[in-house]
Amino acid sequence: MMGYEQLWLDYTRKASCGEAEGIEYICVRISDTEQDALIQNSVKELQDAFEGLVGSRPTLRRDNGAGTGAALSGSTGRHGICLALREGMGAESYHLFSEKGDIVIEASDSRGILYGTFDLIRQMKMEEPLFTLDRTKAPLMPMRMLNHWDNMDGSIERGYSGESFFFADHQILVNDRTRDYARLAASVGINAVVINNVNVKDAATWLITDRYLDKVKELSEVFAGYGIRLYMSLNYAAPVELGELDSADPLSDQVGAWWNQKMKTVFGRVPNLGGFLIKADSEGRPGPFTYGRTHADGANMLARAVAPYGGIIIWRCFVYNCMQDWRDYKTDRARSGYDNFMGLDGSFLDNVILQIKNGPMDFQVREPVHPLFGGLTKTNQMLEVQIAQEYTGQQRHLCYLLPMFQEILQFRTYVKEGDDTVRDIVSGRTFGQHNCGMAAVVNTGNDENWTGHDMAAANWYGFGRLCFEPELSAEEIAREWIRVTYGNDDQVEEILMFLLMSSWPAYESYTSPLGIGWMVTPNNHYGPSVDGYEYSRWGTYHRADHEGIGVDRSHEGTGYALLYREPNASVYDNKDKCPDELLLFFHHIPYTWKLRSGKTVIQHIYDSHFEGVEIVDEMAEQFMKLQGKLPDRAYERMAARFREQKEHAREWRDQINAYFYRKSGILDERERKIY
Amino acid sequence: MMGYEQLWLDYTRKASCGEAEGIEYICVRISDTEQDALIQNSVKELQDAFEGLVGSRPTLRRDNGAGTGAALSGSTGRHGICLALREGMGAESYHLFSEKGDIVIEASDSRGILYGTFDLIRQMKMEEPLFTLDRTKAPLMPMRMLNHWDNMDGSIERGYSGESFFFADHQILVNDRTRDYARLAASVGINAVVINNVNVKDAATWLITDRYLDKVKELSEVFAGYGIRLYMSLNYAAPVELGELDSADPLSDQVGAWWNQKMKTVFGRVPNLGGFLIKADSEGRPGPFTYGRTHADGANMLARAVAPYGGIIIWRCFVYNCMQDWRDYKTDRARSGYDNFMGLDGSFLDNVILQIKNGPMDFQVREPVHPLFGGLTKTNQMLEVQIAQEYTGQQRHLCYLLPMFQEILQFRTYVKEGDDTVRDIVSGRTFGQHNCGMAAVVNTGNDENWTGHDMAAANWYGFGRLCFEPELSAEEIAREWIRVTYGNDDQVEEILMFLLMSSWPAYESYTSPLGIGWMVTPNNHYGPSVDGYEYSRWGTYHRADHEGIGVDRSHEGTGYALLYREPNASVYDNKDKCPDELLLFFHHIPYTWKLRSGKTVIQHIYDSHFEGVEIVDEMAEQFMKLQGKLPDRAYERMAARFREQKEHAREWRDQINAYFYRKSGILDERERKIY
Repeated sequence: MMGYEQLWLDYTRKASCGEAEGIEYICVRISDTEQDALIQNSVKELQDAFEGLVGSRPTLRRDNGAGTGAALSGSTGRHGICLALREGMGAESYHLFSEKGDIVIEASDSRGILYGTFDLIRQMKMEEPLFTLDRTKAPLMPMRMLNHWDNMDGSIERGYSGESFFFADHQILVNDRTRDYARLAASVGINAVVINNVNVKDAATWLITDRYLDKVKELSEVFAGYGIRLYMSLNYAAPVELGELDSADPLSDQVGAWWNQKMKTVFGRVPNLGGFLIKADSEGRPGPFTYGRTHADGANMLARAVAPYGGIIIWRCFVYNCMQDWRDYKTDRARSGYDNFMGLDGSFLDNVILQIKNGPMDFQVREPVHPLFGGLTKTNQMLEVQIAQEYTGQQRHLCYLLPMFQEILQFRTYVKEGDDTVRDIVSGRTFGQHNCGMAAVVNTGNDENWTGHDMAAANWYGFGRLCFEPELSAEEIAREWIRVTYGNDDQVEEILMFLLMSSWPAYESYTSPLGIGWMVTPNNHYGPSVDGYEYSRWGTYHRADHEGIGVDRSHEGTGYALLYREPNASVYDNKDKCPDELLLFFHHIPYTWKLRSGKTVIQHIYDSHFEGVEIVDEMAEQFMKLQGKLPDRAYERMAARFREQKEHAREWRDQINAYFYRKSGILDERERKIY
Repeated sequence: MMGYEQLWLDYTRKASCGEAEGIEYICVRISDTEQDALIQNSVKELQDAFEGLVGSRPTLRRDNGAGTGAALSGSTGRHGICLALREGMGAESYHLFSEKGDIVIEASDSRGILYGTFDLIRQMKMEEPLFTLDRTKAPLMPMRMLNHWDNMDGSIERGYSGESFFFADHQILVNDRTRDYARLAASVGINAVVINNVNVKDAATWLITDRYLDKVKELSEVFAGYGIRLYMSLNYAAPVELGELDSADPLSDQVGAWWNQKMKTVFGRVPNLGGFLIKADSEGRPGPFTYGRTHADGANMLARAVAPYGGIIIWRCFVYNCMQDWRDYKTDRARSGYDNFMGLDGSFLDNVILQIKNGPMDFQVREPVHPLFGGLTKTNQMLEVQIAQEYTGQQRHLCYLLPMFQEILQFRTYVKEGDDTVRDIVSGRTFGQHNCGMAAVVNTGNDENWTGHDMAAANWYGFGRLCFEPELSAEEIAREWIRVTYGNDDQVEEILMFLLMSSWPAYESYTSPLGIGWMVTPNNHYGPSVDGYEYSRWGTYHRADHEGIGVDRSHEGTGYALLYREPNASVYDNKDKCPDELLLFFHHIPYTWKLRSGKTVIQHIYDSHFEGVEIVDEMAEQFMKLQGKLPDRAYERMAARFREQKEHAREWRDQINAYFYRKSGILDERERKIY
């Protein structure tokens, strides 16, 4: 196994946090019987953090919960950290405050203690005052999940940061890195992890068999020690794949009985298991359609089987016709998720969650929010985003995605008066739901830095923080990540902030314009190929001709715009009201059309592509100033990525501009070089 | 191993050849000491053919060459076939005639006897009169070679007809199929075979090591029994790859000595070896450029090492910059072969042959003839064509290539007065050379029918026949192949002739227009992708914009047209004189330009694409009439291919037409459906 870094939990760099130096002990005011692995892990984490950051390891004092509730320390003149359980706070919540010279972390459950612990460590790393802290934090989203697309041979689908650390050679790995992964995830509030790929049937079939259950259990226990429930992707056709049944018909009694028995075995062996993620009837995967049944039939059958054990079934809504004819202008992939699932609203059991991608296509740099958000009113919903930068530079380009995630969460669906944003829906506030939240597809791998691009770690960090405290802005999260990762140097913070906050707009500028998306090399999805998917079966077209570009999804076209509630539908349906950044997603527009920005479409394409490259050049130049200020190895890795990004952004610019110049024949007003 | 068919050597179908029924014996008028495996194989082939086609196996009579030269049979009233060696005929030539009631095959060497044998069998299968035969045949081209791109793991690069039958699991296979391959190849005159891929270093490095030499020898002996010399692709950097030297510098004494010793070993162990094929300094392959040396330095070093054993070095001229910038309009891949090799003319040793692709690009459906033909005057040259249909439908579309090969061979280079065609050059006539000929890249695999598409066998058959008897027309070859393969039914012949002769023009019609080439899916090269290579590093551009399309290779552009001798240079350089079918290869032309055909470029594109599909529809319809007339399995296989071709030709038509309509905005005059 390769060596690896500790990222934002690196305790080797001393923090200047004078107050922390006075902390001498950790007092655990929790009875022995109440103490579990989470409490023990919290104590160890605090000790390790103090030892590394401050230089002295606090001693452990046990109070066994027999104390009066008054701090033990006040009278001694010494300082410590007290961990205490207290009734009446919400699940996973904590209160971090100072009392009589001690810092106190109070919570109703040990997960709250753990989260408070990591918050305190974060404050230390950021060199914030500790003894004036008084904050109560409750995670907004019940489910804060990572979806890994790891395969059992050790490869990772859309992996750009090494091989899997969950699997190698068809075995499950449980080792130091597993634990450190759990620490990193838990430290930002992640409480659920799917360990295997939704797309490949091997793991999704075999992980529920005797061959793997002991090791799944071992892994689930490491996770549980950090408040994380282990989930697995499941092959819907497992009873058939395993050769035990001829059918996977969800309405067959025999199939139901098979699953009931299977889940009894699996949860019996792996009591910490959270449940399953299923991609069914999508891109060639099996599902209930094979038997003429609905997604609800399929999901509910599984939900019934896992219900006795508190299990959850997460059902992906990424269902569309991937054998479309490009000549067909009526079929619209964007509609498919809505069309497939809206009619089933209300027919799913309560332990089923529909997992809905942020947009109707597939993790493009810009998409409208998925219309199922605001459509569904009687179904548990989870928002799926992609940290794995499949379409946003594959961790070779910098693309800090939190601003995008924030925009999505803040989108008003108008599903009711007030509490109608996507954030409201997936936090459960809109419909009073509990099984909901947010999931991110992630591709952390066994690279030394976990994420390929060192700064891509900000997306992992930020996703967790966002799910926990969605009121944080993307800027605040970025600033936090910089300080906990690279320390508190002002110049480092200023430059890295500039890089992070410039990166998504820059990437959008030099890639596909105005919300149309795609234009990437087929299959690997890296780099430009304007027509790469234009004549394909994937339903991802731009319909550019010599006069204009864009897909007519208005009422005159595919009608997709009308799937939204008012006033969104009218805004999107109308060329004049539709936001520029989504214009080509909703409308076929002449190159000479004046955008709301005042530019023509074609001039916008040219300008944004030249500007995007200029921003990247500025980013790279700014980054170079950090030589000597960042750890050398990290600096060198990042410098190499910025060099590639500079060159590759030019390739995007020149191909896109050449394509549209050649097609439209319209010159750049500013007479810049177009090939 | 899979079962497989015998193709044109199938003797299971009775022939109606009354004369052959009278043949009772084979008389071998050759002394025991002169008899070799070829004579024995000839006798066996005749016996097997008669047994299968006529129903009785001729007995073998030995004459031991002691006869007076008078036929033995005349007096007996019985008929036989006599094989006899006679001084004074050219190498590999034969005289097939009738004398005193016997059919006589006379030749100066046993290869001539073998070729005469196969000719006689061909006549029997075609039900031609035998006793009036009187023909002397001498192969025009000294080297008639197949290049296989087989890898040692059993895969075939650009293989569309199964796995390798030369290699599996990194072992060399020698079995019945090997012998039948040699029979099939020899029966059409092939006398040299490269068994391994030029592109993959494993085989090209390791076949010359002790690990494989015994098996190479065994294979070479099977080949030798059919007059075929075995060649191997060689890794130029083998001494380095094998870990024996640090350098492969051709001017290093140490490197030269290494090769001398290596070749002594290799030819000592494999005395039948013909020599080596080398792809050097091309598409990432190592070569003398690494050491600042020329191709002549590299080729001559190897040539010196193999010369003592009569070995030949074949050096590919497919050298170009495969890291081109699409933004660069000056660099022209088409020039690269000429620019790299012209300056070396006369500097290669006599046992070096330059192998030159038919066109300057890479086996497109239409290219001008490579300007090295007619350029080089002091260098041995071999013409390389591709039977493996990499760019011509991959044996899923029917594309009979002999008409193209004939056009190439008939191309006048004007290198001197008379005898100036490509055929003259590669037959050695132009410059009195002996080391020259023609090679075809082929991908026969372990499919039941050897070639994927049953009718693709016509290209294999035809290539051999063309090299042997270049005066045969493509039609004559097609007719021969049909009759020896499927018998002498008039309707079968008529329909298959129509299919074969329509196929290349049809494929050209519905794929890339007017000589521009490419427009294929990157990497796999199957199916349309108009811009697939347009913004790539491969130097294969069409430069289409809203006004026109084509690459300016005239004197105002890259100057490529001027690499030809006059009057070719002036013809190609001039838009008004350039043949329509190559216009876009040589010039950037407005869509509204009137072709010599009277149509505009854009209307030609539309018309040819609609017409191409109509031809394919007609082909498929005609083919269906053969149900019951062809063997059932063959019919079903072909029917499936024609169904795919029909659908896929539409895909080509619609993508190309849509691309140009969208780009030009010019309507089809005939208002057909364009998407």
